[in-house]
Amino acid sequence: MNVNVEEQVTRVIAGIGPLREEAMAQAAGRLDRLTKPQGSLGRLEKLAVQLAGIRGEPTPQFPRKAAVVMAGDHGVCEEGVSAYPPEVTPQMVLNMLSGGAAINVLARQAGADVYCVDVGINGDVRHPDLIERKVRRGTANMCAGPAMTREEALRSLAVGAEVAGMLADRGVALIAAGEMGIGNTTPSAAIAAVLAGAPVDAVVGRGTGLDDKGLSVKRDAVRRAIEVNRPNPKDPVDVMAKVGGLEIAALAGLMLGAAANRIPVVIDGFISSAAALAAVRLCPAVQACLIASHMSEERGHAVVLEALGLEPPIRLDMRLGEGSGAALGFHLVEAASRLIGEMATFDSAGVSRRREN
Amino acid sequence: MNVNVEEQVTRVIAGIGPLREEAMAQAAGRLDRLTKPQGSLGRLEKLAVQLAGIRGEPTPQFPRKAAVVMAGDHGVCEEGVSAYPPEVTPQMVLNMLSGGAAINVLARQAGADVYCVDVGINGDVRHPDLIERKVRRGTANMCAGPAMTREEALRSLAVGAEVAGMLADRGVALIAAGEMGIGNTTPSAAIAAVLAGAPVDAVVGRGTGLDDKGLSVKRDAVRRAIEVNRPNPKDPVDVMAKVGGLEIAALAGLMLGAAANRIPVVIDGFISSAAALAAVRLCPAVQACLIASHMSEERGHAVVLEALGLEPPIRLDMRLGEGSGAALGFHLVEAASRLIGEMATFDSAGVSRRREN
Repeated sequence: MNVNVEEQVTRVIAGIGPLREEAMAQAAGRLDRLTKPQGSLGRLEKLAVQLAGIRGEPTPQFPRKAAVVMAGDHGVCEEGVSAYPPEVTPQMVLNMLSGGAAINVLARQAGADVYCVDVGINGDVRHPDLIERKVRRGTANMCAGPAMTREEALRSLAVGAEVAGMLADRGVALIAAGEMGIGNTTPSAAIAAVLAGAPVDAVVGRGTGLDDKGLSVKRDAVRRAIEVNRPNPKDPVDVMAKVGGLEIAALAGLMLGAAANRIPVVIDGFISSAAALAAVRLCPAVQACLIASHMSEERGHAVVLEALGLEPPIRLDMRLGEGSGAALGFHLVEAASRLIGEMATFDSAGVSRRREN
Repeated sequence: MNVNVEEQVTRVIAGIGPLREEAMAQAAGRLDRLTKPQGSLGRLEKLAVQLAGIRGEPTPQFPRKAAVVMAGDHGVCEEGVSAYPPEVTPQMVLNMLSGGAAINVLARQAGADVYCVDVGINGDVRHPDLIERKVRRGTANMCAGPAMTREEALRSLAVGAEVAGMLADRGVALIAAGEMGIGNTTPSAAIAAVLAGAPVDAVVGRGTGLDDKGLSVKRDAVRRAIEVNRPNPKDPVDVMAKVGGLEIAALAGLMLGAAANRIPVVIDGFISSAAALAAVRLCPAVQACLIASHMSEERGHAVVLEALGLEPPIRLDMRLGEGSGAALGFHLVEAASRLIGEMATFDSAGVSRRREN
């Protein structure tokens, strides 16, 4: 095992601190002076306080945002767990690099840039904007053995942390955690089952559109993968290596790296949330840097969000991935930031306060 | 009674047509060719089809948006139904005209203009940007008799329809229906109880922050208003006149006028939704032009939304009004519009389709 990569991940985790309480108290005080009934902005107020705590300033702003798409392929596709053929992974990554995918449209709308990272595409994508960090060409079929080695999982984590650091250097203050990888709801279900201790049937869904037979095949594949590999639920790296995915581990690393750089991460759907659960199990302080966006239609998302202690504000029955729901969540983060930063106070606007009882 | 104003409202209603089915079919066909699993954008796809049907084009765009704030005061405040004094209505309208209220911040973020309309402020607000259409200086106390006359309710409806027409002339293609009026959750609860046939206790909430005693006073006020006035549930104008509000009737008129001009309306919280229910009872075809935004924390909102057959995609426990939740909803409308307009198709991007079973 390459000791450097393990040390690298350990160093990232060591750099993750708690929320800054002084900034949070200042934000809460300011919210109560704004021209609105106290608490009437509901969870946007809690979000504003959380953002203040992460960024360490009472009225943080988010002029630069990034939607990160981690891409990888999955050997488990051999089992017939996806409605789409594996060649769609590189095709869709090229589509993203050309600006034609849903995440491009939604990121543009939110004023965010899209970053595509090849962590494990089983094929060659060539594009000047692709961030090439291929750890291996897709995972092995986890029904027959480990999806990857422990070192490969650690290298994927390190890739994610490195991307977060690069974005921090570029002044990015808000990240959406998205992914592309045909078949990747299958390892996500396995991770969710192991780390959340949930029954396999409760976390396996139809993905991009399986029929009943496909769903049954997928459940069986997840069960066999867990039986064959016996991942250790106390060791998230072991879980990600044995029944995970390269892009999923990279997403977990992205969240660790973002937390270390005090950058809030908006998580997306089921896969992104499974990665978040792995990241939080590696370092519980990461949880405070996560922001839920939408509740996906994918079965199992609710289970993972509950394990994360997060409640998403948007319900649109989406099941696309790519970071699409997280990009919609950007608008709510921006709203919280602007409200606390731009609204008038009772005193400045000359508005009467509520009656004392 | 002024026959002209009744005729005016009748003419607006007569101009409301059904959704354009050809544009909807074209939109649905296009959505299935975009580079994503079919249906994976969930309710954003249904929204895109609805928008196409309202606007009568398969890929409608919304470069000009307006957040309309109808303002009025309420005689029922004498009963002690609000945590805030009535002078806050003109103060907050001035705050909005100066750009300092929550709706200003959220409208700016969404690229929308704010329009404040004085339909019935009990005071004099002077500002070059205020649209002055005062029907009367606040309603009478509905616990002692009708809140206003039938003609005043019709005139308020006509004001709303006129504003919608003015916005249509300016090229506005999307409207948020907001309001400002201290005490206005009380008449909204009365309207909801009568038009949705719901128990008073199920629709009276804490508004801007009543304590238990205030809540009990408010429930009693709504009960008495309904007993004293006996509004006819089959006659929405009668309900709005007897237990409504000037700004609430104007909002209902805004929705009628928007529907007549094929402009989708994003409704906000409890008050905006009560107005929507009145509008839909006046003309059922209006329902197809309404878009729900958020589920408010105000008790009764869920009841009204159910009566409207709408399910809001955002849940943030907000209870501010002003159109604030509707302005957040603008981002989802914009997302639906951009996705269908800007995403690549499978053919144009060279992406493989799903396997045939």
